[in-house]
Amino acid sequence: MRQFDSEQLAQLDASYRRNLINCLPGYKPLLLIGTQNEAGITNLALFSQIIHLGAAPPLIGVLFRPHTVKRDTLENILATRSFTLNQVLPEWHVQAHWTTANWGESEFDATGLKEERKANFPAPFVEGSPVQLACLLEEVQTLQINQTVLVLARIEQVYVAENGLREDGTLDYDALGTVAVTGLDEYHQGQSLGRLSYAKPSHYPSKI
Amino acid sequence: MRQFDSEQLAQLDASYRRNLINCLPGYKPLLLIGTQNEAGITNLALFSQIIHLGAAPPLIGVLFRPHTVKRDTLENILATRSFTLNQVLPEWHVQAHWTTANWGESEFDATGLKEERKANFPAPFVEGSPVQLACLLEEVQTLQINQTVLVLARIEQVYVAENGLREDGTLDYDALGTVAVTGLDEYHQGQSLGRLSYAKPSHYPSKI
Repeated sequence: MRQFDSEQLAQLDASYRRNLINCLPGYKPLLLIGTQNEAGITNLALFSQIIHLGAAPPLIGVLFRPHTVKRDTLENILATRSFTLNQVLPEWHVQAHWTTANWGESEFDATGLKEERKANFPAPFVEGSPVQLACLLEEVQTLQINQTVLVLARIEQVYVAENGLREDGTLDYDALGTVAVTGLDEYHQGQSLGRLSYAKPSHYPSKI
Repeated sequence: MRQFDSEQLAQLDASYRRNLINCLPGYKPLLLIGTQNEAGITNLALFSQIIHLGAAPPLIGVLFRPHTVKRDTLENILATRSFTLNQVLPEWHVQAHWTTANWGESEFDATGLKEERKANFPAPFVEGSPVQLACLLEEVQTLQINQTVLVLARIEQVYVAENGLREDGTLDYDALGTVAVTGLDEYHQGQSLGRLSYAKPSHYPSKI
């Protein structure tokens, strides 16, 4: 094992440390956030700092870097209180990555990813995404520790490809085929090891 | 596409809704949290609500369900201010899942996963894990929206299997071979689609 103590971590080259620390959690969710500003200009941004907060009511959290520079996605969410989350397919994950460039125009126009509009929701979805969520802003908390901004949102509408939805409400990610991310720039497909039974002391878990 | 609007989400059977909402973020990090209480009794618990907060200083967040019942892991962290995060391998992911049963004894003893002790750190690691982090509590924030508890911690020591550490500080998850989770009970291995170049408007991203 290679070891880094706190002093070594502090002394690492900034790029090396950023790579290492971003990689430590392992596989992370990967979602494109679709927004528009009050003038209707759309924006699309790739995020991995996404966390499930609760199921009843359905809540999800998105962490933004400190709001010390212009952040279009965060500002659009604060202005319109709405955004979409869209999972990414391998076939267009390079375009999804390209949204992270510093574009002067809408990332939809720039990268060729297509907007999809749905009734009764102001923010744009990504066409062809097999898991699309319409979210409404509930709360914003700035974490004092490093000024990152945690957006807490209610999941208002869910769209899931039929082939990935099981009878018990779980999603079959082998069927959906969407992508995870590690670190800042590496993308992955998954392969299921199967589901395990609800854990009880009396029985070693079995596949279900 | 199958659609659920907010009214339908509210009316779903509780188990179906829990399954669906927990599956919506996609692939999530999977980490065993090792702690001990002030009497030295160890605890091991499986978590997926883990979020990268920042690289300098290295910070990570763990979300706990509301502290309305006894939560050993959270209470041990509050008492000792220290915990470990340990990634999971396919060979023992069933034992990792089994830690989620309601044990009266230490989950190490119960499931057969082995404690590893490292110099100068009070909490137990999981032997054989290829990514092990020693973390110190920095802050606790209860999210008013649903009373979940966000633990913000500093990554104090990092242990990574040599074969998974690249020259630029990124981790090679094909080599590490650790597991991700979707929903509450499904585990996955990953397969890399490769890394992509830093995104610029002038160039379509290329593999690096």
